[in-house]
Amino acid sequence: MTDAAASFEVRLPSWLEAGPRDAARRFPTQEARMAFVLELAERNVDEATGGPFAAAVFARGSGELVSVGVNLVVASGLALAHAEVVALSLAERALGSFDLSEADVELVTSAEPCWMCLGALHWAGVRSIVCGARDADVRAIGFDEGHKPEDWAGEFARKGVAVRCDVGRAEAIRVLARYRAAGGPIYNAAK
Amino acid sequence: MTDAAASFEVRLPSWLEAGPRDAARRFPTQEARMAFVLELAERNVDEATGGPFAAAVFARGSGELVSVGVNLVVASGLALAHAEVVALSLAERALGSFDLSEADVELVTSAEPCWMCLGALHWAGVRSIVCGARDADVRAIGFDEGHKPEDWAGEFARKGVAVRCDVGRAEAIRVLARYRAAGGPIYNAAK
Repeated sequence: MTDAAASFEVRLPSWLEAGPRDAARRFPTQEARMAFVLELAERNVDEATGGPFAAAVFARGSGELVSVGVNLVVASGLALAHAEVVALSLAERALGSFDLSEADVELVTSAEPCWMCLGALHWAGVRSIVCGARDADVRAIGFDEGHKPEDWAGEFARKGVAVRCDVGRAEAIRVLARYRAAGGPIYNAAK
Repeated sequence: MTDAAASFEVRLPSWLEAGPRDAARRFPTQEARMAFVLELAERNVDEATGGPFAAAVFARGSGELVSVGVNLVVASGLALAHAEVVALSLAERALGSFDLSEADVELVTSAEPCWMCLGALHWAGVRSIVCGARDADVRAIGFDEGHKPEDWAGEFARKGVAVRCDVGRAEAIRVLARYRAAGGPIYNAAK
Protein backbone atom coordinates (compact mmCIF):
# COMPACT_ATOMS: atom_id res chain seq x y z
CA MET A 1 0.00 0.00 0.00
CA THR A 2 1.15 3.54 -0.62
CA ASP A 3 1.52 6.09 2.14
CA ALA A 4 -1.74 7.65 0.95
CA ALA A 5 -3.55 4.62 2.29
CA ALA A 6 -2.26 5.09 5.84
CA SER A 7 -4.49 8.06 6.62
CA PHE A 8 -7.56 9.94 5.51
CA GLU A 9 -8.62 13.50 6.12
CA VAL A 10 -11.84 15.45 5.71
CA ARG A 11 -11.66 19.23 5.40
CA LEU A 12 -14.42 21.82 5.14
CA PRO A 13 -14.66 23.56 1.75
CA SER A 14 -12.92 26.92 1.52
CA TRP A 15 -16.16 28.92 1.42
CA LEU A 16 -17.08 27.40 4.77
CA GLU A 17 -13.64 27.82 6.31
CA ALA A 18 -13.65 31.50 5.43
CA GLY A 19 -17.35 32.12 5.75
CA PRO A 20 -20.23 31.55 8.10
CA ARG A 21 -18.49 29.47 10.75
CA ASP A 22 -19.10 32.19 13.29
CA ALA A 23 -17.16 31.01 16.32
CA ALA A 24 -19.20 31.26 19.47
CA ARG A 25 -22.15 32.80 17.66
CA ARG A 26 -25.33 32.03 19.58
CA PHE A 27 -28.58 30.66 18.21
CA PRO A 28 -31.25 30.79 20.89
CA THR A 29 -33.95 28.61 19.30
CA GLN A 30 -34.05 25.35 17.37
CA GLU A 31 -35.70 27.25 14.54
CA ALA A 32 -32.81 29.72 14.36
CA ARG A 33 -30.31 26.85 14.45
CA MET A 34 -32.12 25.10 11.62
CA ALA A 35 -32.32 28.28 9.52
CA PHE A 36 -28.53 28.58 9.81
CA VAL A 37 -28.05 24.91 8.87
CA LEU A 38 -30.35 25.21 5.85
CA GLU A 39 -28.34 28.21 4.64
CA LEU A 40 -25.24 26.01 4.74
CA ALA A 41 -27.01 23.20 2.87
CA GLU A 42 -28.13 25.59 0.12
CA ARG A 43 -24.67 27.12 -0.13
CA ASN A 44 -23.19 23.61 -0.45
CA VAL A 45 -25.48 23.07 -3.46
CA ASP A 46 -24.74 26.46 -5.01
CA GLU A 47 -20.97 26.08 -4.55
CA ALA A 48 -21.21 22.52 -5.94
CA THR A 49 -19.11 21.24 -3.05
CA GLY A 50 -21.39 18.34 -2.12
CA GLY A 51 -24.84 16.94 -1.54
CA PRO A 52 -27.78 19.07 -0.32
CA PHE A 53 -27.14 18.38 3.34
CA ALA A 54 -25.71 20.33 6.26
CA ALA A 55 -25.55 19.91 10.02
CA ALA A 56 -24.22 21.79 13.03
CA VAL A 57 -23.55 21.11 16.69
CA PHE A 58 -24.69 23.62 19.30
CA ALA A 59 -24.31 23.85 23.06
CA ARG A 60 -27.84 23.02 24.12
CA GLY A 61 -28.18 25.58 26.89
CA SER A 62 -26.39 28.62 25.48
CA GLY A 63 -27.07 27.97 21.81
CA GLU A 64 -23.40 28.55 21.07
CA LEU A 65 -22.20 27.12 17.77
CA VAL A 66 -19.63 24.35 18.31
CA SER A 67 -19.08 22.99 14.80
CA VAL A 68 -20.52 22.80 11.30
CA GLY A 69 -20.61 20.13 8.63
CA VAL A 70 -21.75 19.77 5.05
CA ASN A 71 -21.96 16.73 2.84
CA LEU A 72 -18.56 16.16 1.23
CA VAL A 73 -18.84 12.60 -0.11
CA VAL A 74 -17.96 13.38 -3.72
CA ALA A 75 -15.44 16.13 -2.93
CA SER A 76 -13.57 14.04 -0.35
CA GLY A 77 -13.98 10.70 -2.11
CA LEU A 78 -15.10 9.22 1.21
CA ALA A 79 -18.51 7.60 1.75
CA LEU A 80 -18.44 8.55 5.44
CA ALA A 81 -18.36 12.30 4.75
CA HIS A 82 -22.01 12.97 5.49
CA ALA A 83 -22.86 16.33 7.04
CA GLU A 84 -23.65 14.78 10.43
CA VAL A 85 -20.41 12.79 10.61
CA VAL A 86 -18.41 15.88 9.63
CA ALA A 87 -20.15 18.11 12.21
CA LEU A 88 -19.83 15.49 14.98
CA SER A 89 -16.16 14.84 14.25
CA LEU A 90 -15.34 18.55 14.17
CA ALA A 91 -17.23 19.00 17.45
CA GLU A 92 -15.13 16.19 18.94
CA ARG A 93 -11.99 17.96 17.72
CA ALA A 94 -13.19 21.32 19.09
CA LEU A 95 -14.14 19.89 22.49
CA GLY A 96 -11.23 17.48 22.74
CA SER A 97 -13.20 14.28 23.25
CA PHE A 98 -14.83 11.47 21.29
CA ASP A 99 -17.66 11.66 23.84
CA LEU A 100 -19.80 14.79 23.57
CA SER A 101 -22.27 13.77 26.25
CA GLU A 102 -20.76 15.83 29.04
CA ALA A 103 -20.78 18.93 26.85
CA ASP A 104 -24.59 18.56 26.49
CA VAL A 105 -24.85 19.29 22.79
CA GLU A 106 -27.54 19.25 20.13
CA LEU A 107 -27.07 18.16 16.53
CA VAL A 108 -29.25 20.01 14.03
CA THR A 109 -29.39 18.42 10.59
CA SER A 110 -31.09 19.54 7.41
CA ALA A 111 -32.46 16.03 6.86
CA GLU A 112 -33.20 12.97 8.98
CA PRO A 113 -29.96 11.01 9.50
CA CYS A 114 -29.27 7.88 7.43
CA TRP A 115 -28.45 4.43 8.80
CA MET A 116 -24.77 5.28 9.34
CA CYS A 117 -25.36 8.72 10.83
CA LEU A 118 -27.87 7.39 13.38
CA GLY A 119 -25.11 5.07 14.57
CA ALA A 120 -22.61 7.94 14.60
CA LEU A 121 -25.02 9.95 16.77
CA HIS A 122 -25.35 6.99 19.13
CA TRP A 123 -21.58 6.79 19.68
CA ALA A 124 -20.98 10.54 19.87
CA GLY A 125 -23.34 11.02 22.81
CA VAL A 126 -25.38 13.99 21.64
CA ARG A 127 -28.32 14.80 23.93
CA SER A 128 -30.67 16.25 21.33
CA ILE A 129 -31.31 15.75 17.60
CA VAL A 130 -33.29 18.17 15.41
CA CYS A 131 -34.17 17.21 11.81
CA GLY A 132 -35.49 19.18 8.83
CA ALA A 133 -36.49 17.05 5.82
CA ARG A 134 -37.93 13.59 6.44
CA ASP A 135 -36.29 10.34 5.41
CA ALA A 136 -38.91 9.96 2.67
CA ASP A 137 -38.04 13.41 1.31
CA VAL A 138 -34.40 12.37 0.88
CA ARG A 139 -35.29 9.03 -0.69
CA ALA A 140 -37.64 10.88 -3.06
CA ILE A 141 -34.67 12.51 -4.83
CA GLY A 142 -32.88 9.17 -5.12
CA PHE A 143 -30.64 8.65 -2.10
CA ASP A 144 -30.75 5.16 -0.56
CA GLU A 145 -30.69 5.97 3.15
CA GLY A 146 -30.30 2.36 4.20
CA HIS A 147 -32.05 -0.05 6.52
CA LYS A 148 -33.00 2.12 9.48
CA PRO A 149 -34.77 0.79 12.56
CA GLU A 150 -38.40 1.93 12.37
CA ASP A 151 -38.42 3.20 15.94
CA TRP A 152 -35.03 4.93 15.92
CA ALA A 153 -36.44 8.09 17.49
CA GLY A 154 -38.11 6.09 20.25
CA GLU A 155 -34.87 4.24 20.90
CA PHE A 156 -33.00 7.53 21.36
CA ALA A 157 -35.82 8.85 23.56
CA ARG A 158 -35.55 5.77 25.79
CA LYS A 159 -31.89 6.67 26.31
CA GLY A 160 -32.74 10.25 27.20
CA VAL A 161 -31.91 11.81 23.84
CA ALA A 162 -34.51 14.35 22.67
CA VAL A 163 -35.57 14.05 19.03
CA ARG A 164 -37.58 16.68 17.14
CA CYS A 165 -38.45 16.32 13.45
CA ASP A 166 -40.02 18.48 10.72
CA VAL A 167 -38.29 21.70 11.82
CA GLY A 168 -38.04 23.84 8.67
CA ARG A 169 -39.11 20.86 6.58
CA ALA A 170 -40.58 22.88 3.70
CA GLU A 171 -37.39 24.89 3.29
CA ALA A 172 -35.30 21.71 3.61
CA ILE A 173 -37.32 20.11 0.82
CA ARG A 174 -36.76 23.19 -1.31
CA VAL A 175 -32.97 22.73 -0.93
CA LEU A 176 -33.25 19.06 -1.93
CA ALA A 177 -35.27 20.06 -5.01
CA ARG A 178 -32.72 22.72 -5.90
CA TYR A 179 -29.96 20.08 -5.87
CA ARG A 180 -31.99 17.73 -8.02
CA ALA A 181 -32.83 20.52 -10.49
CA ALA A 182 -29.13 21.43 -10.69
CA GLY A 183 -28.32 17.84 -11.66
CA GLY A 184 -26.27 17.15 -8.53
CA PRO A 185 -24.88 13.62 -8.30
CA ILE A 186 -26.87 10.98 -6.41
CA TYR A 187 -23.92 9.11 -4.93
CA ASN A 188 -25.32 5.75 -3.85
CA ALA A 189 -23.01 2.78 -4.15
CA ALA A 190 -23.81 0.94 -7.37
CA LYS A 191 -25.93 -2.18 -6.85
CA MET B 1 -13.83 28.18 15.85
CA THR B 2 -10.13 27.50 15.60
CA ASP B 3 -8.50 26.12 12.48
CA ALA B 4 -8.34 22.73 14.22
CA ALA B 5 -12.10 22.50 13.85
CA ALA B 6 -12.01 22.84 10.05
CA SER B 7 -10.65 19.34 9.43
CA PHE B 8 -10.13 15.96 11.01
CA GLU B 9 -7.71 13.19 10.14
CA VAL B 10 -7.38 9.54 11.08
CA ARG B 11 -3.96 7.89 10.75
CA LEU B 12 -2.93 4.29 11.32
CA PRO B 13 -0.67 3.74 14.33
CA SER B 14 3.04 3.60 13.58
CA TRP B 15 3.33 -0.15 14.20
CA LEU B 16 0.74 -0.71 11.49
CA GLU B 17 2.24 1.78 9.05
CA ALA B 18 5.61 0.12 9.34
CA GLY B 19 4.43 -3.41 9.90
CA PRO B 20 2.03 -5.95 8.50
CA ARG B 21 0.37 -3.83 5.84
CA ASP B 22 1.76 -6.11 3.17
CA ALA B 23 0.84 -4.32 -0.03
CA ALA B 24 -0.67 -6.67 -2.56
CA ARG B 25 -0.21 -9.67 -0.30
CA ARG B 26 -2.79 -12.31 -1.19
CA PHE B 27 -5.08 -14.19 1.15
CA PRO B 28 -6.84 -16.96 -0.73
CA THR B 29 -9.50 -17.96 1.81
CA GLN B 30 -11.85 -16.15 4.18
CA GLU B 31 -10.23 -18.08 7.02
CA ALA B 32 -6.79 -16.79 6.06
CA ARG B 33 -8.13 -13.25 5.78
CA MET B 34 -9.72 -13.51 9.22
CA ALA B 35 -6.54 -14.91 10.78
CA PHE B 36 -4.67 -11.86 9.47
CA VAL B 37 -7.35 -9.49 10.81
CA LEU B 38 -7.33 -11.15 14.23
CA GLU B 39 -3.55 -10.73 14.42
CA LEU B 40 -4.08 -6.99 13.86
CA ALA B 41 -6.79 -6.84 16.53
CA GLU B 42 -4.54 -8.55 19.07
CA ARG B 43 -1.62 -6.31 18.19
CA ASN B 44 -3.88 -3.25 18.66
CA VAL B 45 -4.58 -4.49 22.18
CA ASP B 46 -0.94 -5.29 22.96
CA GLU B 47 0.29 -1.95 21.60
CA ALA B 48 -2.52 -0.17 23.53
CA THR B 49 -3.42 1.81 20.43
CA GLY B 50 -7.16 1.14 20.56
CA GLY B 51 -10.04 -1.21 21.12
CA PRO B 52 -9.85 -4.96 20.42
CA PHE B 53 -11.10 -4.64 16.85
CA ALA B 54 -9.56 -4.83 13.40
CA ALA B 55 -10.81 -5.06 9.83
CA ALA B 56 -9.38 -5.31 6.34
CA VAL B 57 -10.61 -4.96 2.78
CA PHE B 58 -9.65 -7.58 0.20
CA ALA B 59 -10.26 -7.93 -3.53
CA ARG B 60 -12.84 -10.70 -3.50
CA GLY B 61 -11.48 -12.65 -6.44
CA SER B 62 -7.72 -12.44 -6.04
CA GLY B 63 -7.64 -12.15 -2.26
CA GLU B 64 -5.32 -9.18 -2.58
CA LEU B 65 -5.14 -6.94 0.48
CA VAL B 66 -6.51 -3.46 -0.28
CA SER B 67 -6.51 -1.77 3.14
CA VAL B 68 -6.41 -2.38 6.87
CA GLY B 69 -8.05 -0.73 9.85
CA VAL B 70 -7.94 -0.97 13.61
CA ASN B 71 -10.07 0.68 16.25
CA LEU B 72 -8.63 4.12 16.99
CA VAL B 73 -11.44 5.85 18.89
CA VAL B 74 -9.45 6.77 21.97
CA ALA B 75 -6.16 7.46 20.15
CA SER B 76 -7.78 9.69 17.54
CA GLY B 77 -10.38 11.26 19.82
CA LEU B 78 -13.00 10.51 17.17
CA ALA B 79 -16.05 8.32 17.79
CA LEU B 80 -16.16 7.32 14.11
CA ALA B 81 -12.74 5.65 14.17
CA HIS B 82 -13.99 2.09 14.31
CA ALA B 83 -11.89 -0.53 12.53
CA GLU B 84 -14.45 -0.98 9.73
CA VAL B 85 -14.76 2.77 9.02
CA VAL B 86 -10.97 3.10 8.98
CA ALA B 87 -10.51 0.13 6.63
CA LEU B 88 -13.32 1.26 4.30
CA SER B 89 -12.05 4.84 4.15
CA LEU B 90 -8.48 3.72 3.45
CA ALA B 91 -9.79 1.38 0.73
CA GLU B 92 -11.66 4.32 -0.79
CA ARG B 93 -8.42 6.33 -0.73
CA ALA B 94 -6.43 3.44 -2.23
CA LEU B 95 -8.95 2.81 -5.00
CA GLY B 96 -9.78 6.46 -5.63
CA SER B 97 -13.53 6.26 -5.12
CA PHE B 98 -16.17 6.56 -2.40
CA ASP B 99 -17.91 3.65 -4.12
CA LEU B 100 -16.13 0.31 -3.78
CA SER B 101 -18.81 -1.70 -5.55
CA GLU B 102 -17.08 -1.85 -8.92
CA ALA B 103 -13.87 -3.08 -7.29
CA ASP B 104 -15.80 -6.08 -5.91
CA VAL B 105 -14.33 -6.12 -2.42
CA GLU B 106 -14.88 -7.99 0.82
CA LEU B 107 -14.66 -6.50 4.29
CA VAL B 108 -13.41 -8.89 6.95
CA THR B 109 -13.95 -7.70 10.52
CA SER B 110 -12.92 -9.22 13.82
CA ALA B 111 -16.41 -8.57 15.22
CA GLU B 112 -19.90 -8.05 13.87
CA PRO B 113 -20.27 -4.37 12.84
CA CYS B 114 -22.10 -1.92 15.10
CA TRP B 115 -25.05 0.26 14.10
CA MET B 116 -22.80 2.92 12.53
CA CYS B 117 -20.51 0.49 10.72
CA LEU B 118 -23.43 -1.37 9.15
CA GLY B 119 -24.49 1.94 7.64
CA ALA B 120 -20.93 2.66 6.53
CA LEU B 121 -20.84 -0.74 4.78
CA HIS B 122 -24.13 0.08 3.06
CA TRP B 123 -22.76 3.33 1.61
CA ALA B 124 -19.34 1.95 0.69
CA GLY B 125 -20.75 -0.73 -1.58
CA VAL B 126 -18.80 -3.77 -0.38
CA ARG B 127 -20.02 -7.04 -1.93
CA SER B 128 -19.16 -9.37 0.94
CA ILE B 129 -18.93 -9.10 4.73
CA VAL B 130 -17.17 -11.65 6.96
CA CYS B 131 -17.45 -11.38 10.76
CA GLY B 132 -15.58 -13.03 13.65
CA ALA B 133 -17.07 -12.37 17.10
CA ARG B 134 -20.83 -11.99 17.41
CA ASP B 135 -22.62 -8.82 18.45
CA ALA B 136 -23.41 -10.46 21.80
CA ASP B 137 -19.72 -11.22 22.36
CA VAL B 138 -18.88 -7.53 21.99
CA ARG B 139 -21.71 -6.39 24.23
CA ALA B 140 -20.57 -8.95 26.81
CA ILE B 141 -17.40 -6.94 27.48
CA GLY B 142 -19.37 -3.71 27.80
CA PHE B 143 -19.60 -2.01 24.42
CA ASP B 144 -23.04 -0.62 23.51
CA GLU B 145 -23.27 -1.53 19.83
CA GLY B 146 -26.46 0.44 19.26
CA HIS B 147 -29.90 -0.23 17.88
CA LYS B 148 -29.22 -2.57 14.98
CA PRO B 149 -31.97 -3.87 12.70
CA GLU B 150 -32.57 -7.51 13.65
CA ASP B 151 -32.41 -8.70 10.06
CA TRP B 152 -29.40 -6.67 8.94
CA ALA B 153 -27.74 -9.69 7.34
CA GLY B 154 -30.92 -10.54 5.44
CA GLU B 155 -31.21 -6.95 4.26
CA PHE B 156 -27.68 -7.06 2.83
CA ALA B 157 -28.38 -10.46 1.26
CA ARG B 158 -31.47 -9.06 -0.49
CA LYS B 159 -29.20 -6.44 -2.04
CA GLY B 160 -26.74 -9.07 -3.22
CA VAL B 161 -24.17 -8.62 -0.47
CA ALA B 162 -22.85 -11.92 0.94
CA VAL B 163 -22.64 -12.13 4.74
CA ARG B 164 -20.79 -14.85 6.64
CA CYS B 165 -20.55 -14.86 10.44
CA ASP B 166 -18.69 -16.84 13.14
CA VAL B 167 -15.45 -17.13 11.14
CA GLY B 168 -12.69 -17.48 13.74
CA ARG B 169 -15.17 -16.62 16.46
CA ALA B 170 -13.36 -18.43 19.29
CA GLU B 171 -10.11 -16.63 18.54
CA ALA B 172 -11.97 -13.32 18.19
CA ILE B 173 -13.53 -13.83 21.62
CA ARG B 174 -10.07 -14.56 23.03
CA VAL B 175 -8.88 -11.14 21.77
CA LEU B 176 -11.90 -9.41 23.35
CA ALA B 177 -11.15 -11.15 26.65
CA ARG B 178 -7.49 -10.15 26.43
CA TYR B 179 -8.54 -6.49 26.10
CA ARG B 180 -10.89 -6.74 29.04
CA ALA B 181 -8.25 -8.44 31.17
CA ALA B 182 -5.76 -5.70 30.27
CA GLY B 183 -8.21 -3.07 31.54
CA GLY B 184 -8.70 -1.47 28.13
CA PRO B 185 -11.17 1.44 28.07
CA ILE B 186 -14.80 0.74 27.19
CA TYR B 187 -15.46 3.97 25.30
CA ASN B 188 -19.26 4.24 25.15
CA ALA B 189 -20.68 7.74 25.30
CA ALA B 190 -21.78 8.46 28.86
CA LYS B 191 -25.53 8.11 29.36
